[in-house]
Amino acid sequence: MSAGKTNRLKARLPRGFADRPASDLHTTNALMATIRDVFELYGFDAVETPLIEYTDALGRFLPDQDRPNEGVFSFRDDDEQWLSLRYDLTAPLARYVAQNLQSLPRPYRSYRAGWVFRNEKPGPGRFRQFLQFDADTVGAAGPAADAEMCMLLADTMEALGFERGDYRVKVNSRKVLDAVMDDAGLGGDESQSTRLTVLRAIDKLDRLGLDGVEALLGEGRTDDSGDVTRGAGLDEGQRRIVLDALTGTSGSGNDGAAGEELTAIADIVRSAGYDEQRIAIDPSVVRGLEYYTGAVFEAELTAEIPNEKGEPVVFGSVGGGGRYDGLVGRFLNESIPATGVSVGVSRLAAARTALGLDATDRQRGPVVVMVLDRTNLPRYQAMVAKLRGDGIRAELYVGDAGMKAQMKYADRRAAPLAVIQGDDEQARGVVQIKDLALGKRLAEGIADNVQWREERPGQFEVPEADLVSAVRQALEPDNA
Amino acid sequence: MSAGKTNRLKARLPRGFADRPASDLHTTNALMATIRDVFELYGFDAVETPLIEYTDALGRFLPDQDRPNEGVFSFRDDDEQWLSLRYDLTAPLARYVAQNLQSLPRPYRSYRAGWVFRNEKPGPGRFRQFLQFDADTVGAAGPAADAEMCMLLADTMEALGFERGDYRVKVNSRKVLDAVMDDAGLGGDESQSTRLTVLRAIDKLDRLGLDGVEALLGEGRTDDSGDVTRGAGLDEGQRRIVLDALTGTSGSGNDGAAGEELTAIADIVRSAGYDEQRIAIDPSVVRGLEYYTGAVFEAELTAEIPNEKGEPVVFGSVGGGGRYDGLVGRFLNESIPATGVSVGVSRLAAARTALGLDATDRQRGPVVVMVLDRTNLPRYQAMVAKLRGDGIRAELYVGDAGMKAQMKYADRRAAPLAVIQGDDEQARGVVQIKDLALGKRLAEGIADNVQWREERPGQFEVPEADLVSAVRQALEPDNA
Repeated sequence: MSAGKTNRLKARLPRGFADRPASDLHTTNALMATIRDVFELYGFDAVETPLIEYTDALGRFLPDQDRPNEGVFSFRDDDEQWLSLRYDLTAPLARYVAQNLQSLPRPYRSYRAGWVFRNEKPGPGRFRQFLQFDADTVGAAGPAADAEMCMLLADTMEALGFERGDYRVKVNSRKVLDAVMDDAGLGGDESQSTRLTVLRAIDKLDRLGLDGVEALLGEGRTDDSGDVTRGAGLDEGQRRIVLDALTGTSGSGNDGAAGEELTAIADIVRSAGYDEQRIAIDPSVVRGLEYYTGAVFEAELTAEIPNEKGEPVVFGSVGGGGRYDGLVGRFLNESIPATGVSVGVSRLAAARTALGLDATDRQRGPVVVMVLDRTNLPRYQAMVAKLRGDGIRAELYVGDAGMKAQMKYADRRAAPLAVIQGDDEQARGVVQIKDLALGKRLAEGIADNVQWREERPGQFEVPEADLVSAVRQALEPDNA
Repeated sequence: MSAGKTNRLKARLPRGFADRPASDLHTTNALMATIRDVFELYGFDAVETPLIEYTDALGRFLPDQDRPNEGVFSFRDDDEQWLSLRYDLTAPLARYVAQNLQSLPRPYRSYRAGWVFRNEKPGPGRFRQFLQFDADTVGAAGPAADAEMCMLLADTMEALGFERGDYRVKVNSRKVLDAVMDDAGLGGDESQSTRLTVLRAIDKLDRLGLDGVEALLGEGRTDDSGDVTRGAGLDEGQRRIVLDALTGTSGSGNDGAAGEELTAIADIVRSAGYDEQRIAIDPSVVRGLEYYTGAVFEAELTAEIPNEKGEPVVFGSVGGGGRYDGLVGRFLNESIPATGVSVGVSRLAAARTALGLDATDRQRGPVVVMVLDRTNLPRYQAMVAKLRGDGIRAELYVGDAGMKAQMKYADRRAAPLAVIQGDDEQARGVVQIKDLALGKRLAEGIADNVQWREERPGQFEVPEADLVSAVRQALEPDNA
């Protein structure tokens, strides 16, 4: 800063963070209320954990943990212990359940929504702070809990307005992948980090296609921006085994347990009326997080949606999850099975907007009481108080500009009406009410300024005592 | 950890952070919806900023900035720039307005709710992460905008159920205090840090009383825990001037501008129908934040509320704010006047609970379909799907315990009904519906276990085809 020609601070946000204006908030809040209704319908109860946790309690399970800071925002507490901003809502839930095990029902079924943080390279539509909405069942080992997560994802998509056929919930099992790893000679402890690199490569199938995944399974890959991602270093035979399993060309002979698990899940969802169009077994699903141990799920938007350039693209994953039987047990002397899903709120909001599923009604602004004479502020504020007392959204113009700027202000606020009282009106005990939307429509049929001034379209006068009732009547939908 | 006899992680939260169970969330969400309605009624529009900002954009305005870390959680970004978690919602708003000045209406009237963080010593009811709900008007210099903030606070208190007479909004002006500082010979630039210490001392009047404040104006004070707070080092004459102004024993001769400002605010709120019981001028109000430049407000609960020991205590401040004409201009080549209020959501929630203003209805749990035969999971899940399809909150028991544990689970979840189908019922095409609440009430009148088993209180049998309609009927309020 000191090198610049001024010491003024620059008003700016760090990369990967964004402000949210009213329109975004209304859209997101409505979307989250819908998700909440579905999660409640399923019997999950609300719970929330703080945004900061001990770093060791969160563990290190992020896909990008080879980056500096390992993808997490961290800092030291006064007592030198490391704290982190949560990077998901699952690791904190595991801590919460372990800490409150004796007082919680078992199975423990909960949902929560909140901000999570990733200290990663931001990009278009890729933020370092974003909203997740999760549901989890802790203390249930069987396929019924996994099957329910798939149904929950499918029902959530439809409640949000996505049509049947425009989305699909895909299910796989990490155990399938474990068997493939064994087949490729990557089963031992010494191959753990290679397995993780393979996992992350497969998880990028959506975005990079088979060729991109194959590069990441081999020597690595350079992206459009020149960034290099190291590969897993698999030889051609190993790559073939993994890719064939991905495309379903050949199954592993070792995945009997996984097969049984997936069959049990399929039986339950089919019996509950969810067909393959809604929930399908799919060998390409792996999910990027390291902590999954069994079934993994992904909700995918299959509808083609125009991107910013108007080109139709497949939108891809909008949520997912899986079984994480080891995460709660990290804190305990017993193993506690668990399964859950996470819904990407921002991505769903973007998809809904792109598909035109949002109600795009602009929120109605307040009735604005204009200020013609500043010595009359108490008088004007009393009018506002009367309107608010009757439940009418209203405000006094509190700036210090003239009438023209005040009308412009009312327009920018989408004010339906302006209330005007000058000396003349005050002397006669009346107020002018100006219907701004109606005035705009009427003005389109008016030839010139002279006619405008004579007719004052959309403006009418009422006794001051009738202010509230006249405003209420003018706000009726029929008069809009 | 390595010194312990096990390497198990301990499930714990850092000091000053708390989990929020469902009951807290329902209470807080309802309270925030009420505040939102009042703020919307006043014409404020929603906006949200991220939780992380550049440290320099937030500035250093906290009352406790002489502590290590200056009260803020901070860390470096990849590019070595300092980032901080926001400590209030005002500094980020100033950054937002400066950054978007051209596209915002002016005055810009907005509200926002969200988490803020203080890296301070936590204590009972004093957290390092807490919720604030703010409203601000940026670009309005006059008393009308300040007066409106006082009215907003008063109306918010009543909308939340606090009775008239149990709260008071107090108004003062920092300019009054500036004049007192001048009188005490503390007006110059060289006394800036002393003025700040005086300000913080006065702000603790509620908590410490006049003697405590006097100690902090002089040599300092040692609290019950042994912590020492340095004083402002004022001599006896200076202390007398400050304390007299605080108690209203004598006004400064230099506060003409402040007096006019407060009179104008009083005129407006009186004209709008707010009497002294609701909004009063009070010379003891200063607010602890350094950025205030003019009017300052405080909403105080005057009702005596029992503390944890059952002793009646005055609850004190639940919100406040003031005019901060310098904060937006830090980023610009022009000065932008601004005023706002902040409501302490957690403190209000605590006060409502203490006064019995919460609807303490426990949320109804889901209907639980019991699992008698695990091979029938698909069949049971289909029943659940039918109930959910009709909008009935329902779930399958997804644990692996027996009937006794399942009934205990249903009880802990506050389930209204349990659905039971064993082999016998399945063969006969029926289900048992057990009304758990009714059963509990009926059981109180039953003499022994034999009678219980014979009568099965609150339990009835219906054809499986009638499951949904029977459950719906049993859930009707009349049958509860």
